[in-house]
Amino acid sequence: MDDYPLTTLPLLERAERLFPAVRVATRAPDRSIRATDYFHVVRRARSLAAALLGEGIAPGDRIGTLMWNHSTHLEAYLGVPAAGAVLHTLNLRLPTEHLTYVINHARDRWILVDDVLLPLLAMVRDRIQPERILVVPFSGSRVPEGFEDYETLLARYPPAETLPARGERDALGLCYTSGTTGNPKGVLYSHRAVVLHSLVVASTLGVAQGDTVMMVVPMFHVNAWGFPYFLTLLGARQVFPGLHLDPASLVDLMETEKVTCAAGVPSIWFGILEALEKEPGRWKLVPGLRMIIGGSAVPESMVRRFDALGIRVTQGYGMTETTPVVSLSVPKAEMQAWEPERRYPVQARQGLPLPFVEVRIRLDKEDLPWDGKSSGELQLRGPWITRQYYGEGESTGKWTEDGWLRTGDVATIDTEGYIEIVDRMKDLVKSGGEWISSVALENVLMGHPAVREAAVIAVPNAKWGERPLAYVVLREGMTAPPDELKGLLERRYPKWWIPDEFRFVASLPKTSTGKTSKLTLREEFARSTAPPPA
Amino acid sequence: MDDYPLTTLPLLERAERLFPAVRVATRAPDRSIRATDYFHVVRRARSLAAALLGEGIAPGDRIGTLMWNHSTHLEAYLGVPAAGAVLHTLNLRLPTEHLTYVINHARDRWILVDDVLLPLLAMVRDRIQPERILVVPFSGSRVPEGFEDYETLLARYPPAETLPARGERDALGLCYTSGTTGNPKGVLYSHRAVVLHSLVVASTLGVAQGDTVMMVVPMFHVNAWGFPYFLTLLGARQVFPGLHLDPASLVDLMETEKVTCAAGVPSIWFGILEALEKEPGRWKLVPGLRMIIGGSAVPESMVRRFDALGIRVTQGYGMTETTPVVSLSVPKAEMQAWEPERRYPVQARQGLPLPFVEVRIRLDKEDLPWDGKSSGELQLRGPWITRQYYGEGESTGKWTEDGWLRTGDVATIDTEGYIEIVDRMKDLVKSGGEWISSVALENVLMGHPAVREAAVIAVPNAKWGERPLAYVVLREGMTAPPDELKGLLERRYPKWWIPDEFRFVASLPKTSTGKTSKLTLREEFARSTAPPPA
Repeated sequence: MDDYPLTTLPLLERAERLFPAVRVATRAPDRSIRATDYFHVVRRARSLAAALLGEGIAPGDRIGTLMWNHSTHLEAYLGVPAAGAVLHTLNLRLPTEHLTYVINHARDRWILVDDVLLPLLAMVRDRIQPERILVVPFSGSRVPEGFEDYETLLARYPPAETLPARGERDALGLCYTSGTTGNPKGVLYSHRAVVLHSLVVASTLGVAQGDTVMMVVPMFHVNAWGFPYFLTLLGARQVFPGLHLDPASLVDLMETEKVTCAAGVPSIWFGILEALEKEPGRWKLVPGLRMIIGGSAVPESMVRRFDALGIRVTQGYGMTETTPVVSLSVPKAEMQAWEPERRYPVQARQGLPLPFVEVRIRLDKEDLPWDGKSSGELQLRGPWITRQYYGEGESTGKWTEDGWLRTGDVATIDTEGYIEIVDRMKDLVKSGGEWISSVALENVLMGHPAVREAAVIAVPNAKWGERPLAYVVLREGMTAPPDELKGLLERRYPKWWIPDEFRFVASLPKTSTGKTSKLTLREEFARSTAPPPA
Repeated sequence: MDDYPLTTLPLLERAERLFPAVRVATRAPDRSIRATDYFHVVRRARSLAAALLGEGIAPGDRIGTLMWNHSTHLEAYLGVPAAGAVLHTLNLRLPTEHLTYVINHARDRWILVDDVLLPLLAMVRDRIQPERILVVPFSGSRVPEGFEDYETLLARYPPAETLPARGERDALGLCYTSGTTGNPKGVLYSHRAVVLHSLVVASTLGVAQGDTVMMVVPMFHVNAWGFPYFLTLLGARQVFPGLHLDPASLVDLMETEKVTCAAGVPSIWFGILEALEKEPGRWKLVPGLRMIIGGSAVPESMVRRFDALGIRVTQGYGMTETTPVVSLSVPKAEMQAWEPERRYPVQARQGLPLPFVEVRIRLDKEDLPWDGKSSGELQLRGPWITRQYYGEGESTGKWTEDGWLRTGDVATIDTEGYIEIVDRMKDLVKSGGEWISSVALENVLMGHPAVREAAVIAVPNAKWGERPLAYVVLREGMTAPPDELKGLLERRYPKWWIPDEFRFVASLPKTSTGKTSKLTLREEFARSTAPPPA
């Protein structure tokens, strides 16, 4: 067989040649819609590649992007690897010390930055040494004095018609973990990993050329779940919300662009759900609209509530180390005919492992059965699972001796093969020598109509070692007495699982990727019980 | 990223673990339906692998199969590569001298043969030297005295739980071209090629786990278009017609098994079309039924007539050298809304090139534009396009100097990117120095209600060099005067394209793969005009 390498170059050529007029739409900062198409996106990506090559960027060099979701970011997703360089998407929600760290650790030669994000870049500017900073005039205004205009550079370079050949093991992208413990760690994505991931994720989701997909998942998060690549491969329409991420703006965009599929994290989707429920007749969405939700667990109540609105939820699971999608909660064919109440729990699981991703759950180096009860650490291997962090050796404790990735997540796998994450290894509550799943408790609490968000953490206890404590955020104007919440939990779980205390708070602390920061909650709890400083 | 090889082993594990109860149904020779499921198919495939390994078959050794379409053949598709051996599917319609040739050329160590095909094997038995012949009791009868029973061997070997690791470049299958000129040539399929082909074909077709797919395409043809592999990967239901390939039996099977998608060659589908049109109310087929048709050109009239029955046709194009699918005539999203009359010609083309297959049309080493008019030789490269024939060097003239496969087909590519095969290089008619497409004329002729089949060949002409001559097979009890056929052609093509002569015959000669043999027609024509032997 032909030794034809699996790279992303054919994606560009395909979209340009076969789907030139397919729409790519972006909401601009002034709320207007800017429409372009694959032809122009790819021509510009080729110009970007020409500029990188012409200005001395060498194969494997890192190009940082500090950008919102828009068509110029898509251009960079396609154009930077087309020049043989590595796209390093910078998470604009990282604490500045981490942002500084990742730019320096990656030795980004250039940074492409949205004009609207220049204030953020200014906060780290004197601690980083990129050779060039190119400002994308996303706002539509003139690029500020003293900065180099991305558009000016692009205009100087006609599209590169011939792109340098790359090997399929060559790197195409770089993302860092959010570094909840210690410094962020980098993961290099190869062309091969991204291509295989694209093919498998697209076909498992059943997303097709006829779809119009809105990427709410930030393009600065874990490879944007691979969406920019597989949507380009398919020739599907792409819709970018820019920086308008409030529920009403997102639902407006879904309506006007006739979105058929949208992807994002649960916190965004909570807001959308509430907006849709509050004003049932306000928006006309495309029938059969699907939501791909990932990044943290989707409570069953969310699946049920979206279903009542005619919107089907598919949950995805993955992480920076896995390109990132590992599993999708697509129901099996026979489950489609199940009563909704039987189907919802399946959709609320993290899903079936994707083809070519091998999964196992382990406790003390022993494989556990797929019985839906036995829980152990979820471990993975496959063609888009990384084997090492960028710039570090292999032996960081993140991989088993036989080469599987240790996810740090505690999971069960049911007899059908659906993975359910029951906790983070470090978030399990060990009470009287037995394990309690904080995630299981949170999911039940979030099913209460008055509860908007909940988080359960382990707190030290003299008698039991640890006991669960629940933080609860109520919905506006609603209440949920602790006894009522306890009763709800007792219907599903043993008495000793029930948190001893419920703390009602206005909001939960979040990590830079939008997940609840249990580390912060544990620290807050420690401070709240520590003796006051003398 | 993980250096995880792309092999077919995960397909077995996935189907066994995630889709154990999914049905695999076969029509037996006695017309009864034998149902099994993925669990049992894979357990038996593992036993086959254990038997191969236990009896001394080494990695890369060839195992021939001389079998109809049924679940035991699927077992061989999965189990032979699982042992590291190479599945060599023998085309039971080959002339015996070619069958002898390919068995000997491949040095098949074992042959698995259906009991009902033993008479065929007997015709070549004394000219081949396989070490063992294992008889599959497909008929349900006891295996004849003096032969080894496949089932007895299988029963001796418990399923191999651990399968030997294979590299992705290792061979998994071997098919031979039908050898219309000279000896058949072998093409080795790698695990990698088959895996990538599976992912791309499945997602382009939009076939999913919920589908029930009937494979009418013989499993002894070009890798069965990859269907056994990608259906197993998806966990879709599989339906095998065995040896009952008459239209009524096939449509019965589609009805009883609730088939949602069926794949086969046009000649079979002609028969089905006529059966459905003749007795409109007789069968209740699943709404939205799709037909994947390939192997030779699908006339537009066939697309139209199936559409009138609510059945959507997708045409595929490919060849032994290409694993085999290269393009599929899936309409683009915006074409779905087109008037049917505008959409039919698109569906009757050979389709859009699949992702990662590069195509070009060339004349005299020059690339031709994609304008739907310029025609030249279709040339291909990509991860599942072969670069050499088995046991031969690279320089057979089948590949260009820069490594593209020369298909020998003359094609146009329209501005949308749809390939249309206008002729075989060797079937073009060169009249007065200008080219006439025989396929174009045939397609128009087959649109006439009285014409069942048509073939146009070039015949020598003193004045023009060559002139077209048409062979026509009429439908039972119908007529089509030559003048009427000429008039039909003149509406589409210039006068000098119109065949000078129409010969009405009872049937057209076919090759072993069911295509019209123009070679035979040319020979017949030569004999019919040659002076009688002295």
